Amino acid sequence: MTDTAPAPSRRRENTRTRLMDAAAEMFAEVGIDAASVEAICDRAGFTRGAFYSNFASKEELFLALCGRSAETTIAAVRDRVTSIEDRGLDATGEVLHLVQEVLEVAGEDRLDVLLGAETRVQALRNPEFAAAYLSSNGALCDSVTQFVRDIADARGLTLRLPADAATELLLSAWISASETAVMTGTSPSDARGQLGERLAQIVRLILE
Amino acid sequence: MTDTAPAPSRRRENTRTRLMDAAAEMFAEVGIDAASVEAICDRAGFTRGAFYSNFASKEELFLALCGRSAETTIAAVRDRVTSIEDRGLDATGEVLHLVQEVLEVAGEDRLDVLLGAETRVQALRNPEFAAAYLSSNGALCDSVTQFVRDIADARGLTLRLPADAATELLLSAWISASETAVMTGTSPSDARGQLGERLAQIVRLILE
Repeated sequence: MTDTAPAPSRRRENTRTRLMDAAAEMFAEVGIDAASVEAICDRAGFTRGAFYSNFASKEELFLALCGRSAETTIAAVRDRVTSIEDRGLDATGEVLHLVQEVLEVAGEDRLDVLLGAETRVQALRNPEFAAAYLSSNGALCDSVTQFVRDIADARGLTLRLPADAATELLLSAWISASETAVMTGTSPSDARGQLGERLAQIVRLILE
Repeated sequence: MTDTAPAPSRRRENTRTRLMDAAAEMFAEVGIDAASVEAICDRAGFTRGAFYSNFASKEELFLALCGRSAETTIAAVRDRVTSIEDRGLDATGEVLHLVQEVLEVAGEDRLDVLLGAETRVQALRNPEFAAAYLSSNGALCDSVTQFVRDIADARGLTLRLPADAATELLLSAWISASETAVMTGTSPSDARGQLGERLAQIVRLILE
């Protein structure tokens, strides 16, 4: 009805968001292949018509999810950094603490960890998904790298690795620790503590 | 025919191995859910009867694969360590080189990288798979940790991290770099070089 409108209506945005939320849950729980468009629509409470007026295919929705997931994490990192800057920390111990805080942004939610793993396995199998994953993950890495550089510059700290390599190290350890926490059924609060310790250990390694 | 024999016959072992090889390829390529027992049997050139006389289910075969994959890697690490010890290296630069060599054991084969990712995503979803993955991965970590300790002791090197934490760091970086190489379509020889550089960077961080 509003096909000629230049920008999507709020209702349309809302439909898109709910379809993406439902799909993210199903992709995490059963994988992309087993999550049918019908089942996604059922969960979101929409018809297949609503689905196909928003997405050409399940694959297109998956690519949209990749982008949204990276944007959400980048925004969360940015928020934490701002709140930390307002506090004006300056000791190395406090830098450790804030890096932990920032990197704990994600990884607390079982479904997020699952969706990340499902996304990577699909990206390994499908070049189009790989391009989308590498692009959104690259944006996330750039954002964290900039944060690492800003902190190091502001506090006069010297890194023993280039900032981008430090970021890769932190992110790969974070993925691994988050996955282990889900597999071992560690409670979210314990998992957060363990993840924080692991990351602090790496930060010390990079800083000293 | 040899059901009463105390040990499985060579032919039976061979059938098991070929079914596991076929399943590993299919699990990597399309995932466990999409790989039917029929398709695994077709690829291996066996009947469903042969399948079910070896495995109670596709899930049981998957668990057997987890164990085999870890054993293969552990054996390969052990072989490399022995060949390195025979050379009697002693300089830090050479330690870097040998750690690279050992950790390059895996990660060169696209299907292995895919199978690892598929295994983790299934372990995240299913507690029984999680237990199997954690057990075989734990055995692999123990083996690499022991190697790290032996090297450090033999060369009089001091680690800036506990050996098990150093192992976790190396293994998570290795998984991440191997996955990125597959996603970017990097050639096996380039991927090996990049992986080696990444791991050497971490070893320097741990050793200095």
